[in-house]
Amino acid sequence: MPRQMKFVAFLMAGPTCHHYAMWRHPGTENRFLDPAFWETLARTLEVGRFDGLIFADTLSFYDETIMARGGQISLLDPIPLVAIMARATSRIGLGVTIPTSCQEAFAIARLLSSLDVLSGGRIVWNIIPSANDLAAQKSGKDTQQNDEPFDRAEEVLKVSLDMWKGWADDALVVDKESGGFLGEGKVRRTEIAGKYIGVRGMFTVPPSPQRQPVIMQAGSSPRGRNFAANYAELVFTLQHSLPDMQAFYADMKDRVAKAGRNPGDCAILVSVNVIVGETEAIAREKQAYINEMVDTRLSVAILADRTGIDLSQYPIEKPISQIPAVTDSLGCFNVTLQGTKPSNLTLGEAAKQFATSEFCPQVVGTPKSVADKLQQFFENEGCDGFVVTPTEMPGSFEAFTRSVVPILQKRGVFRKEYPGSTLRETIRA
Amino acid sequence: MPRQMKFVAFLMAGPTCHHYAMWRHPGTENRFLDPAFWETLARTLEVGRFDGLIFADTLSFYDETIMARGGQISLLDPIPLVAIMARATSRIGLGVTIPTSCQEAFAIARLLSSLDVLSGGRIVWNIIPSANDLAAQKSGKDTQQNDEPFDRAEEVLKVSLDMWKGWADDALVVDKESGGFLGEGKVRRTEIAGKYIGVRGMFTVPPSPQRQPVIMQAGSSPRGRNFAANYAELVFTLQHSLPDMQAFYADMKDRVAKAGRNPGDCAILVSVNVIVGETEAIAREKQAYINEMVDTRLSVAILADRTGIDLSQYPIEKPISQIPAVTDSLGCFNVTLQGTKPSNLTLGEAAKQFATSEFCPQVVGTPKSVADKLQQFFENEGCDGFVVTPTEMPGSFEAFTRSVVPILQKRGVFRKEYPGSTLRETIRA
Repeated sequence: MPRQMKFVAFLMAGPTCHHYAMWRHPGTENRFLDPAFWETLARTLEVGRFDGLIFADTLSFYDETIMARGGQISLLDPIPLVAIMARATSRIGLGVTIPTSCQEAFAIARLLSSLDVLSGGRIVWNIIPSANDLAAQKSGKDTQQNDEPFDRAEEVLKVSLDMWKGWADDALVVDKESGGFLGEGKVRRTEIAGKYIGVRGMFTVPPSPQRQPVIMQAGSSPRGRNFAANYAELVFTLQHSLPDMQAFYADMKDRVAKAGRNPGDCAILVSVNVIVGETEAIAREKQAYINEMVDTRLSVAILADRTGIDLSQYPIEKPISQIPAVTDSLGCFNVTLQGTKPSNLTLGEAAKQFATSEFCPQVVGTPKSVADKLQQFFENEGCDGFVVTPTEMPGSFEAFTRSVVPILQKRGVFRKEYPGSTLRETIRA
Repeated sequence: MPRQMKFVAFLMAGPTCHHYAMWRHPGTENRFLDPAFWETLARTLEVGRFDGLIFADTLSFYDETIMARGGQISLLDPIPLVAIMARATSRIGLGVTIPTSCQEAFAIARLLSSLDVLSGGRIVWNIIPSANDLAAQKSGKDTQQNDEPFDRAEEVLKVSLDMWKGWADDALVVDKESGGFLGEGKVRRTEIAGKYIGVRGMFTVPPSPQRQPVIMQAGSSPRGRNFAANYAELVFTLQHSLPDMQAFYADMKDRVAKAGRNPGDCAILVSVNVIVGETEAIAREKQAYINEMVDTRLSVAILADRTGIDLSQYPIEKPISQIPAVTDSLGCFNVTLQGTKPSNLTLGEAAKQFATSEFCPQVVGTPKSVADKLQQFFENEGCDGFVVTPTEMPGSFEAFTRSVVPILQKRGVFRKEYPGSTLRETIRA
């Protein structure tokens, strides 16, 4: 069997995922407050044999323009959504983003294990060092941060791994006759006195069918990459083009090997925004249509938020090459400019370009040409699979699962059935 | 219509609720890790027209004997269970216990509002000042604690209430044409600089059909009672007998009135452990059977845990009157002794008695005599309703809803149908 692609759906519990005009698309339902919407979406993705879905989350307040104009915001806590989607499905992986800065390690590990037990072993933890790290990661700012959030994240993860290992498979005996609830010596205490976290006690949650949640990481700074190399089973990265993907892929696989792990056990997923049409021309018109709909006011607000630069003082017609704070920044503009530098965009144009796809390529075309492009990334050491972001909700995922997935399945590069019942079985097959 | 009783089911995501032999009962399923079990239980309680169900939770490690022998422990985080049970039902209220000591006010309020939106307005928040407060409340220890946890709890609640009030009903406009996601000025910022919490930003979750979660409180210290008098719509108390209930009821209603609220808007629920049999004799044999099954080792461990007294040095045959640390304690023994003082029990006997029902009466008999006793408490200013605890799971709740509820309905003191769709409508009807 040829090497198999992986697919994860990128979701947020709000109007927008990556593309900031998503909620304004005529076909977008905007039923983000309706649990039935999320149940149906999870079933659609499972029909499409996606490895999983992942909710991004920042657990933070947002800039008021970003709120008022419908930017990349979580309106709801994704945790209850994941629980609900687990019950509507039986195979697809379910991802939650939990920062390690806000809660006790015990509370985080207990929640994750509880979800993992209740879903039958299908949880993936996108571990982020701090609540605002999604934004920080995107802006590239984590390269400038101090190590403390990562040190703490590593401690929280180590404590969690120790607690998860503390339960023997047969620990829960529930012997009504003798009154023995746990087998003697079958649950080991966790005793860790770290720099940030002190834990002394027996973890409370039995192992799930996959024993413990799959670990995912999305950092792209050197520290983030090393963290991922040591722990992550899935890495999620935003890269602009195939050469950028290849550089990241080679570097990450090298780091994983240096960390003493099998590079195959750490899958690299790149973000793509897929737009499918019956013909190339229709697909391109669909792309132009949705990109045109991005709100300039919202885009500039998001760019200011991500870079931490006050952009309100500049007219949107100003070429970004003439905005010193921006050209000096090590922030997201550098990455955005991977694709825009030559064209010397205005502030408004650059912001809109950022808002249409952030860092990830729009893969646009007929089902066949989209499948070709994905295979090109996949077969040229650009990635092991994709984080798919929508422009229309749930239409983008419906179109993808109905028209692109069958082609990839026919070509033998994507599964027709799940190999087992747990997420770890799925991603390792 | 005569005044209507309220019923709330007391649950824990583990082997035991109040009665420490529950999991050893021959009829107990012990499917506490199976989401289908909780869905079926929620439906059973909804058929019984319960106002709600509430998960107790301590978010803490446990003593190892209590873990190993199956004491009052949460194995799972109840939050995903509540989300799952919400989708399996449409009317019953769903209660979560969240301590205010462990998380940011924004995170707590966002989680609660998310559950409230997704359940269609059926969430009740059992607010506890600290993670170990359930234990502390039971032992009466909160009377000896300093005020800080309650001060912090009050700030978290005030900030939450302010965030919940910040959204106008028609704030979410989602106007695809104009790009206006929120109506202008329809979401007010929360700006609170408190002693423990500083919050500056716009809350992210729109109001639920009941606008915001119902507030429940279980404190019995003077500070806890005043907190409840100011904020709680439901109060949950553990009282040993009708005179104790009446004293608490009169005191709480007085405090509610003094806080400027209508005493009818704060319902007092007392905990009862109902055991029903076809005849009085069968019911009493069932009671003796399950009480006899309580593990002495577990009981002493729980008593030691609750009182903070090392009891391992005493033989279980020692009369508790000869254990100075116990007789001096202001802890849970004082309340336990409400009923046991005259009989001068041994340590083992007292611990077992504590473990069978903690503070709440076992109401034992035929469906008719159980209904009579509940009505006696209810009609003599002992309470506005009951928190029902099981000895057999889910059998206790099935027996109660099938045999006792119809009698109370026929007598006109309990609803036959829910009055509306939200929990607040239910408890106010």
